[in-house]
Formats: sequence, structure tokens, C-alpha cells
Amino acid sequence: MSDRWIADRMKKIDASGIRKVFDLAAQLKDPVNLSIGQPHFDTPQPIQDALNRAVAEGKNAYSQTQGIKPLLELIQGSVDEEFGHSDRKAFVTSGTSGGLMLALSVILNPGDEVIVFDPWFVMYKHLATLAGGTVRFISTYPDFKIPLERVRGAINERTKMILFNSPANPSGYVASEQEVRGLAELAQEHDLALLSDEIYRAFCYDQEFVSPAKFNDQTIVIDGFSKSHSMTGWRVGWCHGPEHVIQQMAKLQQFTFVCAPHPAQWAACEAWKYDISPMVDEYRKKRDLIRAELSEDFEIEGAGGAFYMFPTAPGGSGTEFVKRAIANNLLIIPGNVFSSEDTHFRISYAATDDQLKRGAEILRNLARES
Amino acid sequence: MSDRWIADRMKKIDASGIRKVFDLAAQLKDPVNLSIGQPHFDTPQPIQDALNRAVAEGKNAYSQTQGIKPLLELIQGSVDEEFGHSDRKAFVTSGTSGGLMLALSVILNPGDEVIVFDPWFVMYKHLATLAGGTVRFISTYPDFKIPLERVRGAINERTKMILFNSPANPSGYVASEQEVRGLAELAQEHDLALLSDEIYRAFCYDQEFVSPAKFNDQTIVIDGFSKSHSMTGWRVGWCHGPEHVIQQMAKLQQFTFVCAPHPAQWAACEAWKYDISPMVDEYRKKRDLIRAELSEDFEIEGAGGAFYMFPTAPGGSGTEFVKRAIANNLLIIPGNVFSSEDTHFRISYAATDDQLKRGAEILRNLARES
Repeated sequence: MSDRWIADRMKKIDASGIRKVFDLAAQLKDPVNLSIGQPHFDTPQPIQDALNRAVAEGKNAYSQTQGIKPLLELIQGSVDEEFGHSDRKAFVTSGTSGGLMLALSVILNPGDEVIVFDPWFVMYKHLATLAGGTVRFISTYPDFKIPLERVRGAINERTKMILFNSPANPSGYVASEQEVRGLAELAQEHDLALLSDEIYRAFCYDQEFVSPAKFNDQTIVIDGFSKSHSMTGWRVGWCHGPEHVIQQMAKLQQFTFVCAPHPAQWAACEAWKYDISPMVDEYRKKRDLIRAELSEDFEIEGAGGAFYMFPTAPGGSGTEFVKRAIANNLLIIPGNVFSSEDTHFRISYAATDDQLKRGAEILRNLARES
Repeated sequence: MSDRWIADRMKKIDASGIRKVFDLAAQLKDPVNLSIGQPHFDTPQPIQDALNRAVAEGKNAYSQTQGIKPLLELIQGSVDEEFGHSDRKAFVTSGTSGGLMLALSVILNPGDEVIVFDPWFVMYKHLATLAGGTVRFISTYPDFKIPLERVRGAINERTKMILFNSPANPSGYVASEQEVRGLAELAQEHDLALLSDEIYRAFCYDQEFVSPAKFNDQTIVIDGFSKSHSMTGWRVGWCHGPEHVIQQMAKLQQFTFVCAPHPAQWAACEAWKYDISPMVDEYRKKRDLIRAELSEDFEIEGAGGAFYMFPTAPGGSGTEFVKRAIANNLLIIPGNVFSSEDTHFRISYAATDDQLKRGAEILRNLARES
């Protein structure tokens, strides 16, 4: 064994804290599990059928790098209708993480800085590190609003990108039109690449979703089918952005992902036409349920979208509170997995109502013991 | 549009030359196509059925990062039986390219050198560049044998890895046990990571396949189902190697590929048990056929495995010869796509016998005109 083989970058990338919680909880028997970042329903039947059809029709070899034409046309048509940008090109990726990895690797030089909002989605930091970049975190506590003046103050000559995520994981915060516009204009003003992770855009419960691409035609948008259509294991996402960036992402895809899984791309065409509004309504009701169950005992900001809630931990330490929750057979994630602060914890309400009610009861009891 | 957004690494990565040939040939009507690097048969029915079953059973969400347990157990069992190394761990990747990308990114620091044999598989150079590494090419012309003394002479203090591929793309060369052992021992002697791309190991026509892992227990092996089971579009591969390297690859997989497509991993369990020897026999016959058709007019070395042949281009220029072939409705790939030399061209004989005979006739006519 020779440790000198491992590149320095890997020392800066630590294993997902979420997995550590899973390991910690592996000995639990039938826990109340509010830790899972994916829908609790299976892939809808028409989409499963479309996958089977594609396989039977022999759509099993490599696809074109940029994705199959019918899926690209569906995405491009929708993007053109929504934004009307002459230079905006669609591209099929291997999930949202595939799009994020390509975009960061294509744009960041070693030493470049990326502005990321705290709390953040766990991948952002590590994908920036992979590309040799450095993350500059901007705190959004306590209400998770985008602090535009703090963003402006953080921009320096090494700043290359702003990575934005609304609805956000883990806070569920949905940025207002005013915040989104402000951020979009700030990026434009400083010629920064604005990368908008819109994987939860379908899950907005109290207001319309607003993309920064509406205000900044150079925005690079990352999206996917995983969360909205419960296709997390099928690895299909998409992105759209200025053509010169998309071209570079496609070039890098040739040598890394090669193509998104081919039959799943045909199934994604079916997914594109599938009405997910009943699922969104269901998650809105779950959000209402868990918020009502917890609001008396917890401080909860955000929670306007996605399927996450990020309450303040009673007693002040997310890690300590989560340890107590796990000791009571409830799986949740401590805030420091997503943040430089350890003051909160994440609940995923992609679970049955029964699980949510049982989880809420455990949480209330813990809060009252604190 | 702002070109300053594009990272320097992307300027060193050029689009696949194979795609350029495809573009050049896009106007051809029903060409004789001997350019495709994948089997010409569809995924076998039992494997398709297994995919459908997995989907119906709800295997559609994320899998564990390292792969599903049943597949890992099949691979680990086979690896343990073949090598008996105490420290060797199996891991499921998103295709062979996924394994290559992870291994290179996990091992190479900026400035590190990788020894690659010329001619090479197109991805190697670009994946090294992505990780900030530099490739040092070792010519294997004219017979594609591994020149051990030249390898020894190329090793310097920056050398971190040797990337080896037998049976090789594009030459079809299968290294002898003596060469493999020599390379394995050289890597060990200099404490270099030896990365063995064994994606074509099932396709050895004249001798037994030998892995360098037989002689060097620290060898990192990359393999996959794409070529052997015609699953190129399903994106499932595997690797095995020293546990500390595999652990790092799994850590990086969490933030990039997340997991290999989940239902396809279940289908891969079926693939693992599927007897591909009839396909291998078929490709051996195709190799014999095309070699017999061409041997009078072309110099052909290698061609002992995979489904590629890399003859010398009549007239001396691979690019010029391929242009003439395309003008005669035949698609092949010029040698400079795979090499610093432009003296050869690549034929893929993963095609019908009819296509092979028609292609051979065009090639013979071109050779006789040269």
C-alpha cells in the first residue's frame, strides 16, 4: 500500500456527512427515516413502460454525446419558449450531478473562486475542489435570504462563478423575484458565470418559481428528472446555457460520462410530458403537515419548496440533537453536513404521513427535554 | 458571450477525432461503416429481461455509491478466485470511462506524468489533462509490443502512473505474459500506480488473457459490460484494486456519478452469468475473415484481440487514406486520432460479414490505386 498515490485534492474532499449518519444509524431497526433526499414514490408507470419499450427497441448502445434528438427537442422547445434567448442551447447530462461536475470543470481554473450560499448542497464544495477551485461561502442565516450586498462585497479578481440553488437544499428556501433579479444582474455586471441549480424548481409551494436566466441570458441552468419524476437511479438530467459553455461541457462529456444512459433518455421523453402536479400537491400537504406539527417547538425559516425543512436545533448543536434523535430511532441530518454552522438539522418530508407524524412526535419530545 | 469563462484545461482537450470523422461522413448515404467501437449485436434478451424486472421491482432510486451488493459479491468472488489478494476490493462504476475518470482524478496531482503507449485509446490523454496530469507517450510501433526498456527510460521523479490496455484499442494487440509480467514488475519496482484497462479482455483470439494484477497486487483494473455484453448505452462497469485507492474512487463517485444506473446494475448481475463465448467466437471468425481479405495488400500487426485492426495506410498518410475511403463510401478512422503518428488507420470489425467483405473490397481497391 502506497499512500503517495492519492492526489492532494482527495484530502480536501471528505465523504458525504449524510453517509456518515447512515452508517451511524445502520444498527437501527425500522427507524423513522426523515433523512432521504429523494421522493418516496416509485417512478411513474408510464415512464417505466417507456424505458422497457426503449430497451426492446434496441436503444441500448451509446447515444449521441449531447443526448437523443427527441429529448433535446423537447427541452430546447420549452427553454426557447420560456426565455427566448438566441444563444441558449440544451444538453442532456447524467443527472444533475453530471451537469454540475461538467459545468464546474469546464469553467474553473485552479485558484478561481466560486460564491456558494451557506447552508449549501454538499456536492458544491467538492466539485469545486475537483476542478481546483475554492469556495467562498456567504452566510444566509437566519432566514436564508440572498444577501446581495454581502455577495457584492465578496467578489474579487479571482471570483469566476456564483452557484445558486432555489428552491434550496437543505433549507427549502425559495428566493423571491427581487433576490433572483438582483443576483442575476450582479453576475452580469461583474461578468461572472451564474450557475443555477434548479433541480427542485417543480416543488414551489407558495409562489411561482423564478429562474435567474429570466434576467441574465448567460445563466447556466442545471436541472434533472431525478427528484420531480423519482428517477434518481436512472441518471438523467439536462442543462441549458450559452452555446460556447454547453459545447465545452459536451466535449468533456465525451471523455467522462460518454452519454446519459440511453434507454433512460427515451423514458425521459415520456417523463417530460408526464403531469407531476399531483405529486407536488402531495408534497405541499406534507410540508404543511410537518410544519404544523413542529411550529410550536421549533424555529423554521425557509421551507417554501423542495422537500426539506431546516429547523434550528434545540440546545444549539445540530450534531448533539441528531445524536439524541438517532438514539430515539429517528434519522435526520445535522446542519454541519451542509454548513459551516452546526446550529440546525435537516428533515426530509419525502416520507409517508405516518412516518412524518411519528417523526414529529419524537422531535417534539426531544425539544421539550432540551 | 465571455470566453474568459472557459478553463485553460478545456483548451488542451479537443473533441474526439472519431466524432470528426462521423461529421465528415454525415452526408454519406448508407456507408459501409467499419468505424464503430461497439458490438454490432443488441444486448442479449435475458439481460434486457433482467433490466425490465429490476424496473418493475422498483430498483429505480439511488443505489449505494459502490454498487449493489449482489453485483459486488459476484465481482469480488471472481476477483478473489482469480488473484487471491487480501487487499483487493471491487467497485461498480458508470462504465469503463467512469472508472478511468475516477482513477486518474484520484491519483494524479497537477504536473504528474502518466506513461501511455502509442497508439492509445483517445480518452487517456484527456482524462489525464482533466486531472492536471501530463501524458508521456511511448511508441510501440511497428509491432505494438511493450518496449520495457523504453518504459524504464521514461520513468522520472514526476512519473506517477502507467496506463496499460491489452487487448488494445486501436491495434488489437494482446500483450504476452512476458511483457505483462515485465511491466507489472517495473511498476512495482518504481512504486508506480499501474492502471490496467481490461475492457476487451474477453476478446482474446490466439492466447489466454493475462492481467498485470497477476504479478503486481497493487494493480488497479478497469473493466465493464459495455463491449462484452453490448451494454454500451447502459453505463455499467467495474474496477478492482488496492482498497485505499478504491475507497478514494468511491468517495469521488459520491459527488460525480453518484452511482451507476441502478436498474442496469441488476441487469449486470444477469450479464455476469451470461455465456458470451459464442460472441467471442463470432468476432474471432470476423477477425480471420477481414485479415484474410486484407493481408495481401496491407501490413497488419496486432489484431489478436478486441475487434479492431490497425493496418498501415498505403501512401503513408492515415488521414489522406481515410479521406479516400470516405469518398468511396467507407467509414474508417485515421491513425492520428489515436497516435502522434499518422501512418495507420483503424478498422472495427464489429460489423456484419457482408459489410466486412464490402469494406475489404473498397480497401483493396484503394491500396492497389496507391
